[in-house]
Amino acid sequence: MTARIQAIYRIRGSSTTIAERAQQIAVEQSVEMPVAAIAAPHVLDTIVGQVETISELGDGLFEVRIGLSVETVGDDPGQLVNMLFGNSSLHEDVALVDAVLPDTLLAQYDGPNHGIEGLRARVGAGPWALTCSALKPQGLSAKALAELAYRLALGRLDFIKDDHGLADQRFSPFAERVPACADAVRSAAEKTGHPTRYVPSLTGHLDSLRQQMEIARAAGIDTVMLAPMIAGLSNCVRLKRDYPDMAILAHPSLGGAARIAPEFLLGGLFRAIGADGIIFPNHGGRFGYSAETCLRIADRARGSWGGTKGSQRAGLKPAIPVPAGGMVLERVTEMLNFYGPDVMLLIGGGLLSAGAKLTAATEAFTAAVREHRYG
Amino acid sequence: MTARIQAIYRIRGSSTTIAERAQQIAVEQSVEMPVAAIAAPHVLDTIVGQVETISELGDGLFEVRIGLSVETVGDDPGQLVNMLFGNSSLHEDVALVDAVLPDTLLAQYDGPNHGIEGLRARVGAGPWALTCSALKPQGLSAKALAELAYRLALGRLDFIKDDHGLADQRFSPFAERVPACADAVRSAAEKTGHPTRYVPSLTGHLDSLRQQMEIARAAGIDTVMLAPMIAGLSNCVRLKRDYPDMAILAHPSLGGAARIAPEFLLGGLFRAIGADGIIFPNHGGRFGYSAETCLRIADRARGSWGGTKGSQRAGLKPAIPVPAGGMVLERVTEMLNFYGPDVMLLIGGGLLSAGAKLTAATEAFTAAVREHRYG
Repeated sequence: MTARIQAIYRIRGSSTTIAERAQQIAVEQSVEMPVAAIAAPHVLDTIVGQVETISELGDGLFEVRIGLSVETVGDDPGQLVNMLFGNSSLHEDVALVDAVLPDTLLAQYDGPNHGIEGLRARVGAGPWALTCSALKPQGLSAKALAELAYRLALGRLDFIKDDHGLADQRFSPFAERVPACADAVRSAAEKTGHPTRYVPSLTGHLDSLRQQMEIARAAGIDTVMLAPMIAGLSNCVRLKRDYPDMAILAHPSLGGAARIAPEFLLGGLFRAIGADGIIFPNHGGRFGYSAETCLRIADRARGSWGGTKGSQRAGLKPAIPVPAGGMVLERVTEMLNFYGPDVMLLIGGGLLSAGAKLTAATEAFTAAVREHRYG
Repeated sequence: MTARIQAIYRIRGSSTTIAERAQQIAVEQSVEMPVAAIAAPHVLDTIVGQVETISELGDGLFEVRIGLSVETVGDDPGQLVNMLFGNSSLHEDVALVDAVLPDTLLAQYDGPNHGIEGLRARVGAGPWALTCSALKPQGLSAKALAELAYRLALGRLDFIKDDHGLADQRFSPFAERVPACADAVRSAAEKTGHPTRYVPSLTGHLDSLRQQMEIARAAGIDTVMLAPMIAGLSNCVRLKRDYPDMAILAHPSLGGAARIAPEFLLGGLFRAIGADGIIFPNHGGRFGYSAETCLRIADRARGSWGGTKGSQRAGLKPAIPVPAGGMVLERVTEMLNFYGPDVMLLIGGGLLSAGAKLTAATEAFTAAVREHRYG
């Protein structure tokens, strides 16, 4: 008897069909063949997925909990998502809502290397909210982006990340852009006395990600951004292990596999595989997530996870939630009241719109966060 | 003026709001910031996405074509999908239906190394349908899987692939399973005279994928399987370039990002990044794709793509469509009539259910395909 992963699905169906449908999904996500044709007792007892509970949610929806063997996953997070939702992502009546991962499995990914504490330490912050902005638009030269970074950093931001559209393009090749922006931010930090960090976006296959990590490290950078659904979850864990000094912000690009609950994918899975900060679309911006969904994402990212009383192991470090996507200065107070101090506020376009007054707008943003009194 | 990628979205909206919404998506998928705050003429002229056409489809749906600069993509397919649908995957009213990729861009991925012709050559096939089955359930030992492979191969299959659930698990570690299955299939092939190929499933980060490629190659294997949405599109192209002798079957696992049209994702994008064969759920099996969707996937996989008259460059090689997912012997004739000879039929559980009569059932399958008369 080995520990099981509990995968939690929301399935559309009827009370007369749900038991059979749940059983089909349990088979689909484990042995993927007629169970009657399986002879091996070990496979029948351990490997075949087991329907654990079925609860009716109303409106033709059911929550189904299926136990999956941890043996089927091993230590590869790509294989985890394959077992949780690989084939069933193709079933239109099934959504993956959540998964309960045994501590033994969680320990293999081990979550953030740095977490909220490590991110705060980078910028000398105490228990208050962090600030972030974004370098854009893509299409600017490395020099122009570095100038922009300089002006933003003069506003005493904690982090300045690349737009997730910035990759290794001709108009601002990674190897030019990153040292230029890092230098610019460092110059500004020397002027302000605030240790603003530049966070480049890494892209491509694992070799390319590694090469970019090296360039970033050589430029004195200690925090980078990745989009795990594009980079590949397995590559992300590999990088987190190979570069334990680097903190990682996770970008949700391509995360809209509509039928994986965002609180699990972004707040849970991205944290499990090592994101120290998790960027997600805040409610009331350009994206449709509700306030409740956003709070669930934030709480999954930073709440306690794994590690039980009396266990030798502590749980995963908390990752900092980074609500974003069309945020503006006017919302800072509301957002801080909503999320509390364990948050990083990210305003990109909302600052860049200030044009010639960019540094002043940025300074207003960071001052508002600095001066906020948490209720 | 550079060539543009044309991204084709289906957007839910109304005739009074669609123009503004289309413009928002064009900005979201390019510069992701207020256009009014952009000063650089090059960015405004070239980099900002341009709404090219809007057509009403009825029922509150609109097809919107947006031109995106190829400069924003470079030669990384991860960045391509980032620009096509990264942030908009998080917008519930937007689906990515298709994309028209300029030949210059397509040439950077260059599609299948081997294609239908190369797969047929591996098994000495002429212009007829290929056959495939799957090794499962996971949980069996390497030895048990090899025995199963042997019995399947005696039935003269063209390809025997790993179940996509097989990874590098303790019960059948890759380094044990792959040589064992390769040897078993080779022994059977010597007996039947038919050069059946064993196709292992590769998993993990790029280092792991490469290590598995080496093990596979050392075992005399020339065809492997990958799940691009899990492995990462960028890793897939890297592998295709590094191992030009290997043919690749693409598995659709995690491909159900509900709002990317499967004909584009599976038939189009997976082919572009180098899949020689494309596995997808056939209609009437365990998955809900319609017959029309399946034919569209097949035709995107194998139809002509790229390379224009008078151009120096030929288009991409065709990839073979591999309909699967609950197929049975009784459907062989219907499927061959439906897809024609440029197809690989994959029956897994439907053969494994035969138990002691596995080889006979397999032989009946391959004979039915061999003897089929195309209309």
